[in-house]
Amino acid sequence: MQPVIDFILEIDKLKSVTRKIKPLGQDRFENPAEHSWQIAVLATTLASYAPGPIDVDHVIAMLLVHDIGEIDTGDTLTFAEGDWVERKRDELAAARRIFGLLPGPQGERFLALWLEFESGETAEAKFANAMDRVMPVLLNLANDGQSWRENGISYARVVKRIAPPIQTGCPALWDYLAPRLEAAREAGLFGAE
Amino acid sequence: MQPVIDFILEIDKLKSVTRKIKPLGQDRFENPAEHSWQIAVLATTLASYAPGPIDVDHVIAMLLVHDIGEIDTGDTLTFAEGDWVERKRDELAAARRIFGLLPGPQGERFLALWLEFESGETAEAKFANAMDRVMPVLLNLANDGQSWRENGISYARVVKRIAPPIQTGCPALWDYLAPRLEAAREAGLFGAE
Repeated sequence: MQPVIDFILEIDKLKSVTRKIKPLGQDRFENPAEHSWQIAVLATTLASYAPGPIDVDHVIAMLLVHDIGEIDTGDTLTFAEGDWVERKRDELAAARRIFGLLPGPQGERFLALWLEFESGETAEAKFANAMDRVMPVLLNLANDGQSWRENGISYARVVKRIAPPIQTGCPALWDYLAPRLEAAREAGLFGAE
Repeated sequence: MQPVIDFILEIDKLKSVTRKIKPLGQDRFENPAEHSWQIAVLATTLASYAPGPIDVDHVIAMLLVHDIGEIDTGDTLTFAEGDWVERKRDELAAARRIFGLLPGPQGERFLALWLEFESGETAEAKFANAMDRVMPVLLNLANDGQSWRENGISYARVVKRIAPPIQTGCPALWDYLAPRLEAAREAGLFGAE
């Protein structure tokens, strides 16, 4: 049992990683642990909007571990223009290190879930990626565009980055979102173009 | 879709509730959102130690929503001696209010999961309760007994409160824990008896 305990204490570090968005009404940045919880719940509530049949339990399993690599790399703003190949390589190395703390089959299962999410090819991974992308947008829409304004992210960059995965993974959610993003643009919630 | 969005923004408040324990190496209290994430992962890794067959996906579904009532009531120390009947009544009212934001069947499913966890009668609920109880103990053991010392919680109170649910829900975990709690007592990690 000790390897499992070592693992669960190691992933406690995810609570110390900071994202760019703040919980509603809070003057601190959220961390990927509470974010992972929120999108796991979101996936449950939106499962009926998936464009085809999905195994929502499998989506949740992916979402619970999808950010664990950030323990070593930190979070990068979705809209960063940096070297994503290098970053993803580092995150994969981190995932291998951390899941490698577990007994073989359990660690391999988590790594497979992590890779499935990153590849974004299965119906479940597509839906999971839509959940991951939409949550900070929903928070920003409720939060006067906090992370968009603080980081100078324009409407065009947001739409370019999030429209494809959300349209693919949960098109009904994009239909909900598109007019609200347009209204947010008119309200000045984004950084300059 | 709007009711789902209202719900997911309402439960964002769980990130603002404070528990009594601090994430390792952090000078802030953890919140039930990141705690729920961590015990959902823990349940996955410990499922093979359950005393009988369990549906781990069902355990995870329970754990993701089990603390949502605390949005209205706040967290109470597990070892508090106060009026638990009143407290649980208030938490149930909160759960009904918050899950009631969702369309009927979805809200009813979450409320059923919440009630199943609280009742602690099914094999899944017993295992889920063991996960919920053990996590702060594991953190305290790695954290010099931070919340035990800060709140004057004795070894006897901890054992009285956590031994039954952990022995019931995941006996192998209790076998792991018992000698470590004894060692922590000798090391002075608890409050006075």
